[in-house]
Amino acid sequence: MKKIKKVNAAILIIGNEILSGRTQDKNTSFISNWLNIECGIIVKEVRIIPDVEKTIIDNVLRLSKEFNYLFTTGGIGPTHDDITAKSIAKAFKIKYGYHKEAFKILENYYGRKNFNDGRKKMAKMPVSSKLIYNPSSAAPGFLTKNVFSLPGVPSILNSMIDNCKKYLIKGSKVYSKTLNLFTVESNISKKLGNIQKKYIKDVDIGSYPFFRLGKIGVSVVYRSTSKSKLKSVSKELNNLVKQKNLKVLKI
Amino acid sequence: MKKIKKVNAAILIIGNEILSGRTQDKNTSFISNWLNIECGIIVKEVRIIPDVEKTIIDNVLRLSKEFNYLFTTGGIGPTHDDITAKSIAKAFKIKYGYHKEAFKILENYYGRKNFNDGRKKMAKMPVSSKLIYNPSSAAPGFLTKNVFSLPGVPSILNSMIDNCKKYLIKGSKVYSKTLNLFTVESNISKKLGNIQKKYIKDVDIGSYPFFRLGKIGVSVVYRSTSKSKLKSVSKELNNLVKQKNLKVLKI
Repeated sequence: MKKIKKVNAAILIIGNEILSGRTQDKNTSFISNWLNIECGIIVKEVRIIPDVEKTIIDNVLRLSKEFNYLFTTGGIGPTHDDITAKSIAKAFKIKYGYHKEAFKILENYYGRKNFNDGRKKMAKMPVSSKLIYNPSSAAPGFLTKNVFSLPGVPSILNSMIDNCKKYLIKGSKVYSKTLNLFTVESNISKKLGNIQKKYIKDVDIGSYPFFRLGKIGVSVVYRSTSKSKLKSVSKELNNLVKQKNLKVLKI
Repeated sequence: MKKIKKVNAAILIIGNEILSGRTQDKNTSFISNWLNIECGIIVKEVRIIPDVEKTIIDNVLRLSKEFNYLFTTGGIGPTHDDITAKSIAKAFKIKYGYHKEAFKILENYYGRKNFNDGRKKMAKMPVSSKLIYNPSSAAPGFLTKNVFSLPGVPSILNSMIDNCKKYLIKGSKVYSKTLNLFTVESNISKKLGNIQKKYIKDVDIGSYPFFRLGKIGVSVVYRSTSKSKLKSVSKELNNLVKQKNLKVLKI
């Protein structure tokens, strides 16, 4: 039998604009999906916090200790409210200053003449951090201990996430299946609960209502690191469909 | 001078489907905006956690203590993975059982004949909770101490949020202004930092890059409970626009 390797992570979204509701967070689902599919890493907790030094420090220390990896987004730009790099340096008691390689990358990108203080600030970070290269706007992210710090702008974050891969230990792949049924949750909740109980150790079953073309339905999502257990649950669910004479939505 | 009344809240999003990246969370921005605009309440922290009893209990106790209000979303439906109500009862050591009024509402909605166990489960909650009425699908949310528990489906949550209002103490209204500039952050970061320093006590200034019609810009968002301080910052920003000869995007 293959050994199951469980690797987990947390995400820390740093930014007043997300907390205030002004901006819809898109980074959580992107990072979670990427970790899940590309790295077999499961996200166990997400926190959204303001740009406040003490809050950042407390959360970085807590989450980096509790989980295998922590991904932070936001607060690594050139303005006064970008305090993530400095806060992480303080959290881990590492010197905060110009990272030589980051400085060179940015100086090269902007040209010496246009390399002003705001832009130089983006080369400041915990000095011993490893860089995460940024193909879209040069300013690199950085890895400090087990903490990956990425920018908040989704398009930039998305462009650089693959550059985190070389630093990550991968977990066992998690397989996922979805069965979309035209029914209501309360019609299948009892049977579904029984199936979950039977496979409690190996398969994680969730049920989520959906609305489609004026009809109500339930998406049953089941995940496992074992393909064969997933197959067994598929069989049980097919029986449920037959018993209850349910209509399946094929997408 | 009017006294400023600061009231804050946290949001706890409960659900594996958000953590796995399968579903994009929409409730955070909706609740934050509503609390901000309708109630003058500022959201200080958001957490997204899995449907795991211990994790729910720990976070409910922690966040309900730290903030004036806590809003939970998700996990109050009829299926096996809906464990929010039971977990909150355990957290506060309140009896978990049928809430008489909720039971009546649901029995009336489904009709006695169709009121099966799954549906009855939605009437189970901490027995001393107050109900938050649900105009779209009957199953009520509930208020336990300072914790508001709402469903995870955004359309249902949105339909019932106004029914939380009668239980909330409102804070002072926070006014917000946005200035959209066609420039890059590093061009204005120094001046912006100086303005923030000058108004550090009264106004919160954030800067957020945007991309629009192929052009790069920066949204400067500033917030305050004082309209006159906001006006002063507007003046300072107008000076910055003139000095740097920046183009303003009018939306």
